[in-house]
Amino acid sequence: MNHDPRSSLEIALDPRSIAVIGASDNVNKIGGRPIAFLQRFGFKGPVYPVNPTRDRIQGLVSYASLSVLPQVPELVIVAVPGAKAVEAIDECARAGVRVAVVFSSGFGETADPAGRAQERRMVEIARASGLRMFGPNSQGLANFGSGAVPSFSTMFVECEPADGPVGIISQSGAMSVIPYGLLRARGIGVRHAHATGNDADTTVCELAGVVAQDPALKLLLLYLEGIPDPWHLAEAARIARERELPIVALKSGRSPAGQAAARSHTGALANEDRVVDAFLEDQGIWRVRSMVEMVDAAALYLKGWRPRGRRLVSISNSGAVCVLSADAASEAGLSLEPLAEATQAELRTILPGFATTTNPVDITAALLTNSSLFGAILPAIGRDPAADAFFVGVAVAGAGYDVEAFARDSARFEADTAKPLVAAAPQRSVAERFEAHGVITFPTEGEAIRALGQFLSHAERLRTACAQDNPAPDRRAPPASTRMLDEARSLALVGAAGVPVVAHHLCADATEARAAFAALGGGRVVVKGCSAKIVHKSELGIVKVGLESADAVHSAHDEIVAAAARAGVALDGVVVARMARGLRELMVGAHRDPVFGPVLVIGDGGRYVEVMPDVATVLAPFTPARIERVLRRLRIAPLLDGVRGEPPLDVAAFCRVAAAIGALVADRTSGVASIDANPVIVGPRGEGCVAVDAVVWIEVAL
Amino acid sequence: MNHDPRSSLEIALDPRSIAVIGASDNVNKIGGRPIAFLQRFGFKGPVYPVNPTRDRIQGLVSYASLSVLPQVPELVIVAVPGAKAVEAIDECARAGVRVAVVFSSGFGETADPAGRAQERRMVEIARASGLRMFGPNSQGLANFGSGAVPSFSTMFVECEPADGPVGIISQSGAMSVIPYGLLRARGIGVRHAHATGNDADTTVCELAGVVAQDPALKLLLLYLEGIPDPWHLAEAARIARERELPIVALKSGRSPAGQAAARSHTGALANEDRVVDAFLEDQGIWRVRSMVEMVDAAALYLKGWRPRGRRLVSISNSGAVCVLSADAASEAGLSLEPLAEATQAELRTILPGFATTTNPVDITAALLTNSSLFGAILPAIGRDPAADAFFVGVAVAGAGYDVEAFARDSARFEADTAKPLVAAAPQRSVAERFEAHGVITFPTEGEAIRALGQFLSHAERLRTACAQDNPAPDRRAPPASTRMLDEARSLALVGAAGVPVVAHHLCADATEARAAFAALGGGRVVVKGCSAKIVHKSELGIVKVGLESADAVHSAHDEIVAAAARAGVALDGVVVARMARGLRELMVGAHRDPVFGPVLVIGDGGRYVEVMPDVATVLAPFTPARIERVLRRLRIAPLLDGVRGEPPLDVAAFCRVAAAIGALVADRTSGVASIDANPVIVGPRGEGCVAVDAVVWIEVAL
Repeated sequence: MNHDPRSSLEIALDPRSIAVIGASDNVNKIGGRPIAFLQRFGFKGPVYPVNPTRDRIQGLVSYASLSVLPQVPELVIVAVPGAKAVEAIDECARAGVRVAVVFSSGFGETADPAGRAQERRMVEIARASGLRMFGPNSQGLANFGSGAVPSFSTMFVECEPADGPVGIISQSGAMSVIPYGLLRARGIGVRHAHATGNDADTTVCELAGVVAQDPALKLLLLYLEGIPDPWHLAEAARIARERELPIVALKSGRSPAGQAAARSHTGALANEDRVVDAFLEDQGIWRVRSMVEMVDAAALYLKGWRPRGRRLVSISNSGAVCVLSADAASEAGLSLEPLAEATQAELRTILPGFATTTNPVDITAALLTNSSLFGAILPAIGRDPAADAFFVGVAVAGAGYDVEAFARDSARFEADTAKPLVAAAPQRSVAERFEAHGVITFPTEGEAIRALGQFLSHAERLRTACAQDNPAPDRRAPPASTRMLDEARSLALVGAAGVPVVAHHLCADATEARAAFAALGGGRVVVKGCSAKIVHKSELGIVKVGLESADAVHSAHDEIVAAAARAGVALDGVVVARMARGLRELMVGAHRDPVFGPVLVIGDGGRYVEVMPDVATVLAPFTPARIERVLRRLRIAPLLDGVRGEPPLDVAAFCRVAAAIGALVADRTSGVASIDANPVIVGPRGEGCVAVDAVVWIEVAL
Repeated sequence: MNHDPRSSLEIALDPRSIAVIGASDNVNKIGGRPIAFLQRFGFKGPVYPVNPTRDRIQGLVSYASLSVLPQVPELVIVAVPGAKAVEAIDECARAGVRVAVVFSSGFGETADPAGRAQERRMVEIARASGLRMFGPNSQGLANFGSGAVPSFSTMFVECEPADGPVGIISQSGAMSVIPYGLLRARGIGVRHAHATGNDADTTVCELAGVVAQDPALKLLLLYLEGIPDPWHLAEAARIARERELPIVALKSGRSPAGQAAARSHTGALANEDRVVDAFLEDQGIWRVRSMVEMVDAAALYLKGWRPRGRRLVSISNSGAVCVLSADAASEAGLSLEPLAEATQAELRTILPGFATTTNPVDITAALLTNSSLFGAILPAIGRDPAADAFFVGVAVAGAGYDVEAFARDSARFEADTAKPLVAAAPQRSVAERFEAHGVITFPTEGEAIRALGQFLSHAERLRTACAQDNPAPDRRAPPASTRMLDEARSLALVGAAGVPVVAHHLCADATEARAAFAALGGGRVVVKGCSAKIVHKSELGIVKVGLESADAVHSAHDEIVAAAARAGVALDGVVVARMARGLRELMVGAHRDPVFGPVLVIGDGGRYVEVMPDVATVLAPFTPARIERVLRRLRIAPLLDGVRGEPPLDVAAFCRVAAAIGALVADRTSGVASIDANPVIVGPRGEGCVAVDAVVWIEVAL
């Protein structure tokens, strides 16, 4: 038995000994590659090939079975197919192996019931014994810090590793090594490149929590197709935030087409994309849209910069690059503030009269005649308070220019200011000089400023995420079955939770409806058919608005009853409600996401919510402050403070209502599965808001 | 005198002889570089250095002045500063030189009145004599087809030219050669790289019309900071469309920050960005947002593909690349349609059972064991009707893979199907094999599919642009001065142009207002203060809605008169108007853009147009069909056909109204400078629409 006191997942990253079941002499076979890698990449412990048909494999003694090894290996690679893999897991479990990495495929990733059952069996065996399993269908783990590379990735044959401050974790083998390859091509060292395969036992997110503890790491990259266990990712993110380790995630399946492809690939339950966005933002994780975005900004994270804002100062010898950098800055959410008048005055004493000194700073083609101009202007710019970060664009240089001086001056400027600086140079010869001085350089201003924008925005997000309390989603399953309540019951339920509800009466017949009109004190009322079968009432003609007399209410009642009968809908009665007045119809929805837990959706309300959505998602905790922050990002945000002479809306009252509705769904004891309150009519500040219609779904015991 | 029958701008691209005023022996000086370039890049005509202080320059006989040359050169480079440049232009004009390229700077690009006056003087001299001038402040022209490279660009020193099918034109020197450098680094030949400088005489857009006639060209790239002469660009685009030459434009100044920087750089009048978008789209020109977008797709245009649609079939050996390619396709506006069942059945006989065959096609890691799988599936996919274009993603390959076969098979497949195909391979070693077979290859699927999306969308836009009649903007200046009409006069004017206008009466006092209520036949009316001084009435409290009696109208009249008096606003009376009913408030605006001519803006209406704009721009001709096409791209588009049981809107009536309003502004004899009709209340289909409020500005003779 093995007595390593570390957790199994810590051992997975740095085992003392490794065996390979299904070992091969052929280094291009999955049972051959890891043996070669472990020898080549400096793994210090013993490696035990297991293959009953050979005496020696790749120069090592080969063993007939796990049971005859000189010791119980801490980690076992399983590279045998089908039932043999299940047997291997069983052997590992019985021997007290701590970690198994199962390369073999043909299990849960297929539609084959037998393969899927074998995978379930492997998990059962592992969990019963405390064995932790990666895979099956895993391309393997790779830790170039320890030389533990139980992997068969072709990429490590093709692209020489170098230990460094980046970690990569992915289910997909390709996505664990494509960023590795792209980063290595940029000269960046990568320590971890783990592919967890089918995630049948250990998942990407659980492993992330262990990798995030590696003190050498400065950047953690994740590729995710599904997030079945957000609590693990939240824990990893918490650890990372505490030590200021940024996490960048490429979560695919952003589009319906991508989600369909992801279902085919990993069979993962599609996560609702806007919920994923909200979750990652809460956790301080930056979500990129593509592999290019994932690797382009990587170098910036490794510099140790501590940016304080998003104000950019842009400098170039080309006016056109200045213009394009300003466009790129706008797109990246960076602002260009004018340099102080004193700074500009100083620049004007250095630069030619036609140079622009506001920001961007256009050195102009005069740089060709006088290469010292660039270095000369930097001190003044460095002293100016307008900069959180810098962009230097060398449009064209070469013969006649002192490129070495530009590069040296840029590097010194970056060091002196201790602020982020990125450069762009379309000529490789120029870029290479800048890179030689350690300046991060892209071919064009667009790429440079996009990467800078990501880095600065992520830094801001991390500051926000650290400041707030985001509990991780719990692991409880969603309700198995739900039932809809009719409008009167729905309004009663949200009303009981403290949500102001429009004055209304449920009436069994026309006489009651007339009485309700009187009880409401007259004025304008609405009459609606009340049914637990109908979500959208308008289409059926069972809503009559703007009624101003008992007779009108009576007729409306009769028409609604007739329309419902024609539509074959049983009514629980009709609701006679006061016509609420206010400034804007908003909406509040809340439901339980199968993996992320309670989700609040707020936004513009009314009948066009589906076709012209302007909504945003909030995850728990549903505090009014968190709700308002998201509300103010909506398209309708300008209306909240009043436009064109209108009073401001009662935002505080709306946020309280949204928080109450969220709390009702978040409270598992409430029995409420989801709520849709639309419209919630919001009045002027101080006059509150009122829910006018609501649909509640409650849990039903099976 | 010179008797070349070609136009001066044709001569500029291929002169028979060139002189350099201000010639220098120093090849890093602006008067030295072009002499070196002309000799190095194969210019066949005589080159005459002009410099009174030397006998020979760079091995050539130097002349004291233009007048002593053996012949009148067709093109003269002016590389002398200030007043000497003006003198040189004068000499050229008197000698009958056809083209002058003025490198010298310090003229119109500065704030210096003397320099600006010198530039105007040069233009006057040139125009009086028929001399065509490029610059001043031009980095020069470069035609690597003819070897005519009257340029001083450092880029041509640093990056070896190769004649090829791409042309680049830019005011900015940097932007004429940055795409050149980036394309050359991708192995693409560039014939034209022209920098026109201050565009004082010849502009980018005028030169584009000549370059577009070069039969060797397959792609024309433009960098634009301003478009002062859209008629020239429209003519270039017309020529290009006729010969199916695509034009891709990078028009900077997309953001307010970029526009501010552009004003500093070229002093160009900022074009309204959405008008630029509409103009370029009408002309079939593709607008890119960045230099990367400009060069990334270039190779695709050179293939001669004739795509028919935007349906993508994606193939990879990585399921994750399949998923990411689907996301990228959605973002690029490409659809992934499932392969036909017969195709899928055929693929299933070849691929392992767990491979996905719908689309994307996931070959899976089985490709490592069997490299022939890739070639084996292509014939079936090629026969499937679901593809307009293909993506091939080689996630990871190398040892154990027959990469050469993948590359060869991809190239053959592309040739056999004659459909666009792009590949992605993060490993340079793999990408190089594909490139060796002529397959366009990017590092990642995101870049590949974005470029493909641009190419396919541009092809579609060109088909649309060819099918429609887009007259070029005229050159007439906008009106010098305008005056606003009050609501009653504005409504009368648009009413006379055939726009249905709400029933209303302009009333001088309360008695007339009471009479107007009666004349409107009762019902609900609105009373509004009428003034030629007020655009937004609501804020002043001079609009009273929902009045239902003569007494209420009387009181409203009095309150409005009092409110106007308090606000110090002189009223022309009050308007009593029927409360129009309909399904949606839309808006129509029309004005004359200083350079693009009449512009129509249509969109969602009401009081929030400024804070929540949902509008689109249409340029002349204002046909209902063109208007409807743009209307259907708006956020409110789903409402046009009716949602949730609502009837469809009378879109045809609205488009007729918009066309009528556009025509009124387009008609220079109407005296109307601009119109804002908001709201135009649109009823159900067949019930028309009605303008409820309007503000007209008319031209005022000075």
